Amino acid sequence: MGGDHGPEVTIPATEAFLRADRSASAILVGRQDVLEAPFGKLADAFGERVRLQVASEVVAMDEPPANALRAKKDSSMRVAVNLVKSGEANAAVSAGNTGALMAISRFVLKTLPGIDRPAIATVLPTARGHCHVLDLGANVDCSAEHLMQFGIMGAMLVSAVEHIDRPTVGLLNIGEEEIKGNEVVKEAAELLRKSGLNFYGNVEGTDIYKGTTDVVVCDGFVGNVALKTSEGLASMLAGFLREEFGRNWLTRLGALVAMPALKRFKERVDHRNYNGASLLGLRGVVVKSHGSADAFAFQRALWRAAEEARNDLIDRISQRMASRESTQ
Amino acid sequence: MGGDHGPEVTIPATEAFLRADRSASAILVGRQDVLEAPFGKLADAFGERVRLQVASEVVAMDEPPANALRAKKDSSMRVAVNLVKSGEANAAVSAGNTGALMAISRFVLKTLPGIDRPAIATVLPTARGHCHVLDLGANVDCSAEHLMQFGIMGAMLVSAVEHIDRPTVGLLNIGEEEIKGNEVVKEAAELLRKSGLNFYGNVEGTDIYKGTTDVVVCDGFVGNVALKTSEGLASMLAGFLREEFGRNWLTRLGALVAMPALKRFKERVDHRNYNGASLLGLRGVVVKSHGSADAFAFQRALWRAAEEARNDLIDRISQRMASRESTQ
Repeated sequence: MGGDHGPEVTIPATEAFLRADRSASAILVGRQDVLEAPFGKLADAFGERVRLQVASEVVAMDEPPANALRAKKDSSMRVAVNLVKSGEANAAVSAGNTGALMAISRFVLKTLPGIDRPAIATVLPTARGHCHVLDLGANVDCSAEHLMQFGIMGAMLVSAVEHIDRPTVGLLNIGEEEIKGNEVVKEAAELLRKSGLNFYGNVEGTDIYKGTTDVVVCDGFVGNVALKTSEGLASMLAGFLREEFGRNWLTRLGALVAMPALKRFKERVDHRNYNGASLLGLRGVVVKSHGSADAFAFQRALWRAAEEARNDLIDRISQRMASRESTQ
Repeated sequence: MGGDHGPEVTIPATEAFLRADRSASAILVGRQDVLEAPFGKLADAFGERVRLQVASEVVAMDEPPANALRAKKDSSMRVAVNLVKSGEANAAVSAGNTGALMAISRFVLKTLPGIDRPAIATVLPTARGHCHVLDLGANVDCSAEHLMQFGIMGAMLVSAVEHIDRPTVGLLNIGEEEIKGNEVVKEAAELLRKSGLNFYGNVEGTDIYKGTTDVVVCDGFVGNVALKTSEGLASMLAGFLREEFGRNWLTRLGALVAMPALKRFKERVDHRNYNGASLLGLRGVVVKSHGSADAFAFQRALWRAAEEARNDLIDRISQRMASRESTQ
């Protein structure tokens, strides 16, 4: 049903996605009265590549996850995840309530063997390309073993969707000599060192955007703060740039002449390119789009989910976990 | 002796500082062979407002703090902090090894009554002005009581140097409903709510640069990651801007015409304006300059230290802690 903007965003995104990716098909999940008309139009264009699955309820953006899980058995979110469980869909994408999506996915799909807790991973741009950071808020109090599992999931994600054989994994820590990291992080570094992953070692906050490693592992509290702080900084800087260029006719002229460079800059750091956070560690692909995503951004989330399903992300994680069990 | 650049930076900074602030005087602390000549020049210009205090040793930037504390009793850092202890100086400023400066300051000056651990606070620009964030890395595993003490220290810092009567204090947390914060943060919110401070409540990463509160409290791990992540992002964005403007003659022309706006933008976000992190909770004013600070940045750190001393920061914190004890 599509987060803050609903079908206004998800329908054009689905249309663009199906047009761009001819091997993909889509199931719209939601209330009949809302989706019937847009579904008709999509069906005219794409025939059997698009299906409608009716769900009578909708999880509200601010609804407590426990409530969404217990009281709304026929929510669009629940029905979509059920389709993944039954194998009718290869992935579910939602722009709705994150906590509810995680609770429902975990309850319906269950975690993979050896995974204690699912994590949320996102992609961020870096000076050298991009990197995948997890966890972003699903797990607040993490043990060293949890951080280690995040490392495995992150590495498998990158090897699946970026086709990198042995992606580098960094553990987010702080640099002051005397006080390097807390106990959990120190212990996690030991586990990661012995894991067989391509463990780079500790990285600092600056390394995320430097692109020092392909994967950055941290607990959900730290990851969430790093991500939100970045959002706040980027938005402040964009505001300052706008203010300075809008100050008078001279600066506005400057903006006009500088437009080609400013436009390319803007495209390059456009967060919509990075929309779609992966819920990892589950027995199925689930991707969370930003609630305020527009059609362009939501299409990216659909693409991300398709890529994960196509490249057997779930099998990769589960095989990696199984080989770990057998060597222990 | 001045961090990465030494007297090349600290001497011009001291000169500019003494010129700008006619009520201030300075004591240069360090090796005689290094400081004698520049001291002579400063003494010619400022007479008795400048003094030389010889110290035979220097703490290396990468030296283990315990080593600096135990083995170098006559380091410039140690001698400078001793001058604060004896009352000969109102504040000490160093661009050296952070861990060593904290260890020495804590050992020599001791913490104020009721303060369990000193914290490091820094100023960051916001969309509305600026905010003070602590801790930035001195304390990795914090209890709720520690976070609460950081709140008091931060509020007293802002009331002293910004002359705001009841500065707002925010507690850094994450927003997902089901999983709001870890146990320590939840408990700290309770303590802050009952503290008599102007406690705003929880804030998220985005709120730092929005300027939602005057003070943002977090543990040193989270604060360090937020700060370093910001540095990394800002530097990546600056690099992208440079790249896009340098791409061809058209974009270079754009940069030229856009120069007035770009220059103002750059000045506005110049991190040198915010140089100088305060070591709070000690029985004396100690300010840490960035190791790579230039003269302009180091002058800001000197100014910050002078402001803290002049506005009785230490008394304010200690009175606030005493009133807290008496009401408990």
